[in-house]
Amino acid sequence: MPSHSATHAPTHIAGDWGTTHLRLHLCRGSEVLDKADGPGIGALTASPESILFDAIQSWSNTHGTLPIWLAGMVGSRNGWKEVPYASCPADIEKLRGALLRFRSHDHDVAIAAGVSCTNRLGAPDVMRGEETQILGATAAQPALGRGRHIVALPGTHTKWALLEDGRLQSFQTSLSGELYALLAERSTLLKAGSAPANEQDERNGFDAGLRRIRELANVPLTHLLFEVRARQLIQGLSPTAAGAFLSGLIIGQDVLGALPLFDQASPGTAVPIVGAPKLAALYSAALAAHGINSFALDATALTVAGLTALAQSGS
Amino acid sequence: MPSHSATHAPTHIAGDWGTTHLRLHLCRGSEVLDKADGPGIGALTASPESILFDAIQSWSNTHGTLPIWLAGMVGSRNGWKEVPYASCPADIEKLRGALLRFRSHDHDVAIAAGVSCTNRLGAPDVMRGEETQILGATAAQPALGRGRHIVALPGTHTKWALLEDGRLQSFQTSLSGELYALLAERSTLLKAGSAPANEQDERNGFDAGLRRIRELANVPLTHLLFEVRARQLIQGLSPTAAGAFLSGLIIGQDVLGALPLFDQASPGTAVPIVGAPKLAALYSAALAAHGINSFALDATALTVAGLTALAQSGS
Repeated sequence: MPSHSATHAPTHIAGDWGTTHLRLHLCRGSEVLDKADGPGIGALTASPESILFDAIQSWSNTHGTLPIWLAGMVGSRNGWKEVPYASCPADIEKLRGALLRFRSHDHDVAIAAGVSCTNRLGAPDVMRGEETQILGATAAQPALGRGRHIVALPGTHTKWALLEDGRLQSFQTSLSGELYALLAERSTLLKAGSAPANEQDERNGFDAGLRRIRELANVPLTHLLFEVRARQLIQGLSPTAAGAFLSGLIIGQDVLGALPLFDQASPGTAVPIVGAPKLAALYSAALAAHGINSFALDATALTVAGLTALAQSGS
Repeated sequence: MPSHSATHAPTHIAGDWGTTHLRLHLCRGSEVLDKADGPGIGALTASPESILFDAIQSWSNTHGTLPIWLAGMVGSRNGWKEVPYASCPADIEKLRGALLRFRSHDHDVAIAAGVSCTNRLGAPDVMRGEETQILGATAAQPALGRGRHIVALPGTHTKWALLEDGRLQSFQTSLSGELYALLAERSTLLKAGSAPANEQDERNGFDAGLRRIRELANVPLTHLLFEVRARQLIQGLSPTAAGAFLSGLIIGQDVLGALPLFDQASPGTAVPIVGAPKLAALYSAALAAHGINSFALDATALTVAGLTALAQSGS
């Protein structure tokens, strides 16, 4: 029961709780009034419950027991409470019906369900968190609610989603972000370099990786990765350029694998890229190399918009 | 100066000193009289020099200052002494000329050079250690010294080498072993499983991975890897089967990438696979799926044979 009922009083709390971060937003409708942060599901130092209610304590003191809406890995087996996957095709009504709702510390809590599908390659596929970003994207960009669109959600596990009249029809996951991090940070591919990052080296390295993948589209990635090391040993490539070359290979291959999906999109539609700004710029460049236009959307803002859309629809 | 000159006296010490192991062999010609072990170049607890001479001290006490022949990462920048790469094509005379020879603790020491080439994909490529195994293979299997043969050397950095009349003509590296280890041990792909390994699960999982790669030869690996996780979440695949499926995907893709090299081999020749027995069996199965026969050779024995061939040729 909110303790404030003035027009400016908040209506709910929306939280993006993924593997690495908890990002909480105090909302009045679609407006964000305040923010708070906490540890991700993969880095919990206490129970999810105590972390959440500690993080929102000052809001609760001022505004009472606001409803809490959460999305992301918080709903996974290793999260707070496991929420079964909704299956594709999934629209807002289905996602609303799949919410896990319960009371905790006198708050109404709702955790968004992830979504499963059989992807275009015939394999089972899952997402958790991205479905809420996609809801937010269709709320923020009404044009995405009509026709067939591909939405790119690059990250640890990059998702390529097909929307049809605002419904999540299917999607396909690529392991690009996690693969890059493992290879860049834990493999023998990059020589330790103490030189400061050089932007020109980075740009050239990334472009060279993209070009290499396009020229050798039929060569398995395993046969191209060792070049990252050999080019440093033999051609004197800098570690910065080599890291960017590796990124170009992986993002270039990720986009190559997504290209068949674009046959299903309505012609001439630009691709929304939902991700961190620097990563979105790399995907934008990789898509542009195939003549595909794109525009960037902020992932956290879309999660808030998606949760708010769920909170407002038919409650 | 050897302290024993009887017919049974050893002639030299041959050592395979890679990233993970030092494997020393007390030799009389091609016969191994005794063995000793030590840490790999990537796990040194003291200087390479003190580790080596500690490991052979009892041999030196008994047999005096035998010549020492070493191959592998011991000749890399992070090894004992850096030995520049010899370039392809490389025969035994070229490899002998490229040896780094010096005296240490009154022993004659020779460290084998690695080999560089421009691979079939137009990229620089390097090996260090495998060139000596290949020399050993041609010494052990005279048939490899005539005609054109592909030799598979699976491992952390798998090498596919083209031999022409016993000469190392070129080769191509795939990152299969390191990629598998990173994804199996450090990624989010495999759920932690306490169940004991199940051989049937392993075989079925590996075969399913091989089949998947053959059916989807044109799909980038990044778009297939997440299946390893999703099949556990949605289809109840066991962690053991999922790990083997991952192995099948990676080894299957490695072999797909090597197939164009086989166009250059003399028709009907079986492929020697130089590697650990279990890994060699997996590569043998992956090659057999493409109608290619193979046979296994022991890597360490070939290193000893290769160093012995170098020690005996024209010294």
